[in-house]
Amino acid sequence: MSHNTFGHLFRVTTWGESHGPALGCVVDGCPSGIPLTEADIQPWLDKRRPGQGKFVTQRQEPDAVRILSGVFGDERTPGQLTTGTPISLMIENVDQRSRDYSEIAQAFRPGHADYAYFAKYGVRDYRGGGRQSARETAARVAAGAIARKIIPGVEIRGAVVQIGPHAVDPARIDWAETANNQFWCPDAAMVPVWEEHLEKVRKAGSSTGAVVAVEALGVPAGWGAPLYGKLDAELAAAFMSINASKGVEFGAGFASAAFSGEENADEMRAGPDGPEFLANNAGGVMGGISTGQPVTARVAFKPTSSILTPRQTLNEAGEELELRTKGRHDPCVGIRAVPVVEAMMACVLADAFLRHRAQTGGGAFHPGETARR
Amino acid sequence: MSHNTFGHLFRVTTWGESHGPALGCVVDGCPSGIPLTEADIQPWLDKRRPGQGKFVTQRQEPDAVRILSGVFGDERTPGQLTTGTPISLMIENVDQRSRDYSEIAQAFRPGHADYAYFAKYGVRDYRGGGRQSARETAARVAAGAIARKIIPGVEIRGAVVQIGPHAVDPARIDWAETANNQFWCPDAAMVPVWEEHLEKVRKAGSSTGAVVAVEALGVPAGWGAPLYGKLDAELAAAFMSINASKGVEFGAGFASAAFSGEENADEMRAGPDGPEFLANNAGGVMGGISTGQPVTARVAFKPTSSILTPRQTLNEAGEELELRTKGRHDPCVGIRAVPVVEAMMACVLADAFLRHRAQTGGGAFHPGETARR
Amino acid sequence: MSHNTFGHLFRVTTWGESHGPALGCVVDGCPSGIPLTEADIQPWLDKRRPGQGKFVTQRQEPDAVRILSGVFGDERTPGQLTTGTPISLMIENVDQRSRDYSEIAQAFRPGHADYAYFAKYGVRDYRGGGRQSARETAARVAAGAIARKIIPGVEIRGAVVQIGPHAVDPARIDWAETANNQFWCPDAAMVPVWEEHLEKVRKAGSSTGAVVAVEALGVPAGWGAPLYGKLDAELAAAFMSINASKGVEFGAGFASAAFSGEENADEMRAGPDGPEFLANNAGGVMGGISTGQPVTARVAFKPTSSILTPRQTLNEAGEELELRTKGRHDPCVGIRAVPVVEAMMACVLADAFLRHRAQTGGGAFHPGETARR
Amino acid sequence: MSHNTFGHLFRVTTWGESHGPALGCVVDGCPSGIPLTEADIQPWLDKRRPGQGKFVTQRQEPDAVRILSGVFGDERTPGQLTTGTPISLMIENVDQRSRDYSEIAQAFRPGHADYAYFAKYGVRDYRGGGRQSARETAARVAAGAIARKIIPGVEIRGAVVQIGPHAVDPARIDWAETANNQFWCPDAAMVPVWEEHLEKVRKAGSSTGAVVAVEALGVPAGWGAPLYGKLDAELAAAFMSINASKGVEFGAGFASAAFSGEENADEMRAGPDGPEFLANNAGGVMGGISTGQPVTARVAFKPTSSILTPRQTLNEAGEELELRTKGRHDPCVGIRAVPVVEAMMACVLADAFLRHRAQTGGGAFHPGETARR
Repeated sequence: MSHNTFGHLFRVTTWGESHGPALGCVVDGCPSGIPLTEADIQPWLDKRRPGQGKFVTQRQEPDAVRILSGVFGDERTPGQLTTGTPISLMIENVDQRSRDYSEIAQAFRPGHADYAYFAKYGVRDYRGGGRQSARETAARVAAGAIARKIIPGVEIRGAVVQIGPHAVDPARIDWAETANNQFWCPDAAMVPVWEEHLEKVRKAGSSTGAVVAVEALGVPAGWGAPLYGKLDAELAAAFMSINASKGVEFGAGFASAAFSGEENADEMRAGPDGPEFLANNAGGVMGGISTGQPVTARVAFKPTSSILTPRQTLNEAGEELELRTKGRHDPCVGIRAVPVVEAMMACVLADAFLRHRAQTGGGAFHPGETARR
Repeated sequence: MSHNTFGHLFRVTTWGESHGPALGCVVDGCPSGIPLTEADIQPWLDKRRPGQGKFVTQRQEPDAVRILSGVFGDERTPGQLTTGTPISLMIENVDQRSRDYSEIAQAFRPGHADYAYFAKYGVRDYRGGGRQSARETAARVAAGAIARKIIPGVEIRGAVVQIGPHAVDPARIDWAETANNQFWCPDAAMVPVWEEHLEKVRKAGSSTGAVVAVEALGVPAGWGAPLYGKLDAELAAAFMSINASKGVEFGAGFASAAFSGEENADEMRAGPDGPEFLANNAGGVMGGISTGQPVTARVAFKPTSSILTPRQTLNEAGEELELRTKGRHDPCVGIRAVPVVEAMMACVLADAFLRHRAQTGGGAFHPGETARR
Repeated sequence: MSHNTFGHLFRVTTWGESHGPALGCVVDGCPSGIPLTEADIQPWLDKRRPGQGKFVTQRQEPDAVRILSGVFGDERTPGQLTTGTPISLMIENVDQRSRDYSEIAQAFRPGHADYAYFAKYGVRDYRGGGRQSARETAARVAAGAIARKIIPGVEIRGAVVQIGPHAVDPARIDWAETANNQFWCPDAAMVPVWEEHLEKVRKAGSSTGAVVAVEALGVPAGWGAPLYGKLDAELAAAFMSINASKGVEFGAGFASAAFSGEENADEMRAGPDGPEFLANNAGGVMGGISTGQPVTARVAFKPTSSILTPRQTLNEAGEELELRTKGRHDPCVGIRAVPVVEAMMACVLADAFLRHRAQTGGGAFHPGETARR
Repeated sequence: MSHNTFGHLFRVTTWGESHGPALGCVVDGCPSGIPLTEADIQPWLDKRRPGQGKFVTQRQEPDAVRILSGVFGDERTPGQLTTGTPISLMIENVDQRSRDYSEIAQAFRPGHADYAYFAKYGVRDYRGGGRQSARETAARVAAGAIARKIIPGVEIRGAVVQIGPHAVDPARIDWAETANNQFWCPDAAMVPVWEEHLEKVRKAGSSTGAVVAVEALGVPAGWGAPLYGKLDAELAAAFMSINASKGVEFGAGFASAAFSGEENADEMRAGPDGPEFLANNAGGVMGGISTGQPVTARVAFKPTSSILTPRQTLNEAGEELELRTKGRHDPCVGIRAVPVVEAMMACVLADAFLRHRAQTGGGAFHPGETARR
């Protein structure tokens, strides 16, 4: 994770601003011989795409991805395979609505990174937030689609589990339900509650926060590299790099602070296919290494900073003013963050897999194995 | 952050196991000309040192640090200065109590990383947890002492704000109070409550979780490098790399999920020395860049996994057994984590400062400045 | 330097194949506030462009570069400035001549990397050499144009000093002369000799090797970071990463093996503006750190591997065959390598400058200065 | 390669100065389960050790290496195995002869990096050259011993092939001969010539340069990662990072500049075990990827900069003076560089192997294989 590149061996470098001609990424280090066309990537982008419901921004972007390098096919090879060289992906910006930016050209929108970018760089592309725009996350989702193909045995699923004060009861989570509503909500009973809440928020020109849950099933034991490449440390960085995220927790997370040692211990029994755990408070990671259980995390998102209520702020000249942020905005960025959180999970896991394969040859040692030690 | 090295320009590589001859780290990339002797590092290690109270492990380790390289002084230069070359620090292990490890040599302690290390590497140093032992954090604290000297204008302070179910009321936090008790507790009234709770936990051979709060004051605007070197993303990785941490949040953190956009906006006014914020829900970081406000975070720690109550587990042969973890352990690892959290904050900030200076020359653009844009 | 990214703080990630839709690079870590438009980059690409003489490939590529991100300008800022965010550059491939690749689709061209790519990846884009094509160097040249703007005080100049057996006498080198001929030859008397040699080579369907010399003037003392980020080590890697390069030397290079210690010592005297050296056998670098003298290097290039004389080889089925490589090729790749060598020098120096500024604040300590020691 | 760390997955961080208490390195990323004790490392250090002949420095250093972490053995595992955690190696400095450094404490030894370090850092450890001392290479040799165990099928051998003006005829190279003389000379007939030359040089208080050749046999096809992690690019950086090296070439190297395309093509035939090459002008690397042939390189070393003849220079005050460098020095550093060059080759190859295994699973595609493409 460094400037605009993340990953060690599966490396993704993203570029682009909200209102520039295009955005994209270069995915480097991908294994060769993996079938890959635009059709493998586009569905994931479509999940993230704006303009798909009442409670997300009305900006209309087809988000059509184009693969510019790193794949090859000819008459002898139906389809296309990755070649092991860098895969360049590009998504053109289409609906950069022509409008008057004179207000925010000068003023710092409170809650946004406008002032921080100004303080650091002295120059900033204010159109639609420039580089800080959530449009950049399209590049992450595209990269995540490739990452998933490197670890085909892993299933990643995300859900919104809280919007504003309304949290889903963990006991009621039904992952299949997330496909049935516009909120990725895993509890059908919560959907009308959120609808009502968001309608109120939208009408008030306000916004609201959310919590996203994510799980990776099928991650074998052994991924992650202690001590500073711990799987959960890398996931935490990946999730915190998403726009508007304010917190990350794994397994029991903050709740584990109130646990006793007895509650916390994820006891083990021998199963037919190897160790089985009686609980997963650890969230599938111990000592920074996967245990073979589902890798589970939750990410907190603050409310969209763009709201219609005037807020006190400054402009670049240092003068005080009040600002209301017009434009097309999601009232709850957490909703559209779901595919992004999933994509970051996929990228970190693909990278962890490659690094694990490098150091150990891949695979895991099983209890009872006498090979080494 | 990669395997056993963290940082990009201020790079720390740690090594060592709980029961090996020594542990230590190599600090690379430190600026030259900084006065540095063992006396600058030892006090921070003394803060972290075990054997200092009823509620921390009784292992007696002097944790005396030795600087093996990277500094120089002669008769013309009283004291010693860093030379810009790698600083090697070593701490010898002294109190590796001779005991019988035959039980855990074979068995995986539940809640510990024993099984994960076995699954990944096939061979593990089980004595005292080997590399997964919290003794490694001594190296982090030593590195943090050097990091602080690179950013002398920054003050870092940590506190325990929750032990088990007993959380400090944020309104009652008095940072000065942390020096007055063995818990780094910022609320004098909470001290007896925690004492009672921990006494009960200790007697039961159990353990308890905790939450640590940390703040950095004096961080100027502009540190942190979007999008994948965001200051909060790097801090999140640094904190999640600490033993037993299960969650990280910044500013309002998970609470911001329930906020409205109006509540969330950290409004700005013009102050005599530059922008002033009316709130700090962002935790001093927006868009991954520091804003000039205090950088604030909270880290959740699970209970110590070593407890006396027998727990179900497996051994390396895959056989089921029950295990109670004897030995000398902290009933609440969160307490001794405070200096470690502070040290990781220092290291990440020193690294962010150097990277900021590289790209921008250092400093920040101030509103009203007409230099560039 | 890792896979398809080079540089530490000034980081360039290149992508693209010879016969794909486009090629390009992402330049990350560039300081903000630097004026940059396509017009700053295009002239350097034009220097490298194919189709410009009898002795370079006749492929016609306009090599028009497009900046897709990382710059910003509005009515208040005439022109465009870098914003500190990643700069994405794209060059479309235009003249991918439609032809029959069936022969090399199966066969490994000897001297080329065809077999090596096959052995590593199992799948390869054979059209025009795919990723191994020298077309990729256009991305390097574009990145180099940006690098030069970060270190405006540094002048970089390259020349061909040997083609085949005909080497320029070092005493006759006149850098100004390189602009007057199609060979970047610094000795007017050598031009007809090379013309005759290359004409013979071209007619024979053969090719020839070359040596390129490069110098950077105005590099201050202090750049480069021992021990493994030595300025000459990083330059060596950068030059060796260029297609067809087989050797690199600095200063007196291989000749210094025959020197005595007396000949080798670059003695110093006090000049009006600081230390002056009486010789520069070191090539401007000692201990991996620049000395303030010109940084000088020479790079050896092997002959173009594509020749018309049939050569023995294998195909992907492992069968023996004879192959003559048709197509449009430079008989001497060393000639068109000059702008590439210059660009790599620029990129490495810009990166070294940023890293030096990070660790030291920039600048150099001057003899007589009493500040620190 | 960055500051004091080299390698990507097999990462070596070295530390220590000539006259500090010790020097060493941390080797991170080593696979687990490899038998490793001090006895595996010490013989390689003994090869490099000073004090072993008339023509190397008389400093007496036992160079006894100590493993401080990263290995484990118990009664169930005879011997010790690597655990996958960082391996810390330490070598104490013993013979730091007490002497008067007042002369070079102030003056810059010409040809040395004294001035460059001063200009960069403002403070330097002048005792024995501090960090720029060739003593640091002991850490490289120790790391190389571990690297060799990761790639047991690879044999690495080095030789001195030129001292001063006296070069070995390539046709006369007999690798077995290197063990029979103090020069690692592969031509018995050259030994007396070099003895006479070096005796003259030593008596004159002078020094001489040298060229070292190195080969790695048994490297399979497929190692190395284009375009900026090319095997030869990484080797070039590794070799150029060695003290006093001034040039690197692979295969035919600089001689290939005079080649025709026909001479240069390394033609291929089908052998019983896969492709066979009729020549190896490429030095075992094409397009940055190993071809299965021996990887061959040559490294040029300048003469030792410490000589008895007075040379003109400056001191830290900027005053002119003449300096003759007393002390214990090798008249030809190239000789003792042989084990260092070999070690760097081993480290780069081990790293390349791990990275290749990460991206491809290891192994190579063989002609005739129909698996993928």
